[in-house]
Amino acid sequence: MAEQKSPHDVPDVTGMSIGILGGTGDQGRGLARRFAIAGHWVLIGSRDAERARAAAAELGSRLPVRGMENAAVAAEADVVVVAVPWEGHRELLASLAGPLAGKIVIDCVNPLGFDKQGPFALPVPEGSAAQQAAAVLPDSRVVGAFHHVSSVLLLDPEVDRVDLDVLVLGDDREATDTVRALAGRIPGFRGVYGGRLRNAHQVEALTANLIAVNRRYKAHAGLRITDV
Amino acid sequence: MAEQKSPHDVPDVTGMSIGILGGTGDQGRGLARRFAIAGHWVLIGSRDAERARAAAAELGSRLPVRGMENAAVAAEADVVVVAVPWEGHRELLASLAGPLAGKIVIDCVNPLGFDKQGPFALPVPEGSAAQQAAAVLPDSRVVGAFHHVSSVLLLDPEVDRVDLDVLVLGDDREATDTVRALAGRIPGFRGVYGGRLRNAHQVEALTANLIAVNRRYKAHAGLRITDV
Repeated sequence: MAEQKSPHDVPDVTGMSIGILGGTGDQGRGLARRFAIAGHWVLIGSRDAERARAAAAELGSRLPVRGMENAAVAAEADVVVVAVPWEGHRELLASLAGPLAGKIVIDCVNPLGFDKQGPFALPVPEGSAAQQAAAVLPDSRVVGAFHHVSSVLLLDPEVDRVDLDVLVLGDDREATDTVRALAGRIPGFRGVYGGRLRNAHQVEALTANLIAVNRRYKAHAGLRITDV
Repeated sequence: MAEQKSPHDVPDVTGMSIGILGGTGDQGRGLARRFAIAGHWVLIGSRDAERARAAAAELGSRLPVRGMENAAVAAEADVVVVAVPWEGHRELLASLAGPLAGKIVIDCVNPLGFDKQGPFALPVPEGSAAQQAAAVLPDSRVVGAFHHVSSVLLLDPEVDRVDLDVLVLGDDREATDTVRALAGRIPGFRGVYGGRLRNAHQVEALTANLIAVNRRYKAHAGLRITDV
């Protein structure tokens, strides 16, 4: 009889290279830094190769991080994280559909607006940023994850460990398992399956609530899922 | 100088009576049981007074719980929890706008649909169940809270403590502070301010994700907010 598979089991992702589109932003640099510390080759992407190289250099020459254009990152990396601003999200991904075909694409974009009362969720025609990515990348394996990670903590050299759960959403079990494994490479992080892609909107939008929490409690709030 | 108020401070809610509209459902009975154990008078409401009395009796004669019609609950209780099914939510609340005027009304309704692929968030014209409540109860102090509590755990006599955070949403600081205090009366619960009412949709919808988590991990998942 085959051994019973636990929902916590994850594949071995050692040696996987991770590309980050929009990797010069805070969230992208924070994830780049932590994945590189965990031993992954990280490719930081930007529209401007020079800015990407500067962001990589800034993370320190001892870390395995390189900077290049987004298109080169999409072509070279084993797995690609989408950390671009919401404005331009669809257009950039559509332009990279070829090189991203067949790859796991991790969307961590939160479509938010801000006004005097603070942050709020923007409506997305496809339902969510992750579903928009899936719509324009029909040949990629799109997963939603890393929505609630604090870039401040990830970039802080004094912080060795950030304790939180990363909700991982998608319709492709092998892809969500791989992304859960990648999340678990960052000390303190745990990847937890969080539902299908059609339920990504509320996870993205919840970032507005976490920002409200941060303001009220002067915190860098994240989530833990209890009883799992 | 006035003492600095901590965002964790809560008012004293001892002695407050708690009404639960739709209190014969699982979520309503679970909250009724825990609030009664915490020493609050609880009024379980139903369209049918007889069913409400039966639900109250079932919780045990030693607990301070009574059953009555929803309208009587709305008139008598100090604070009212809305735990009715989403179908009929607007109609019931609109019919009780008079007796609910001036009161704190805690909406914990999750507008969800289910199909072969599991749960998903239903669109709500007002944005969320909590915003719908605020729209039909213009003279009440509407707060969203208790969306992610597991009725199975709350009703289990073997479970003394349920560790989770209750996200409390609203635009009235005194009302959200009172509801945070009420949440804290249940052992293991902590009330955490979670943003304005306009950001309630994603908190309600996240219940679909927690159901997906429960199915995958055979759990009764809840949330904890880290760094707060």
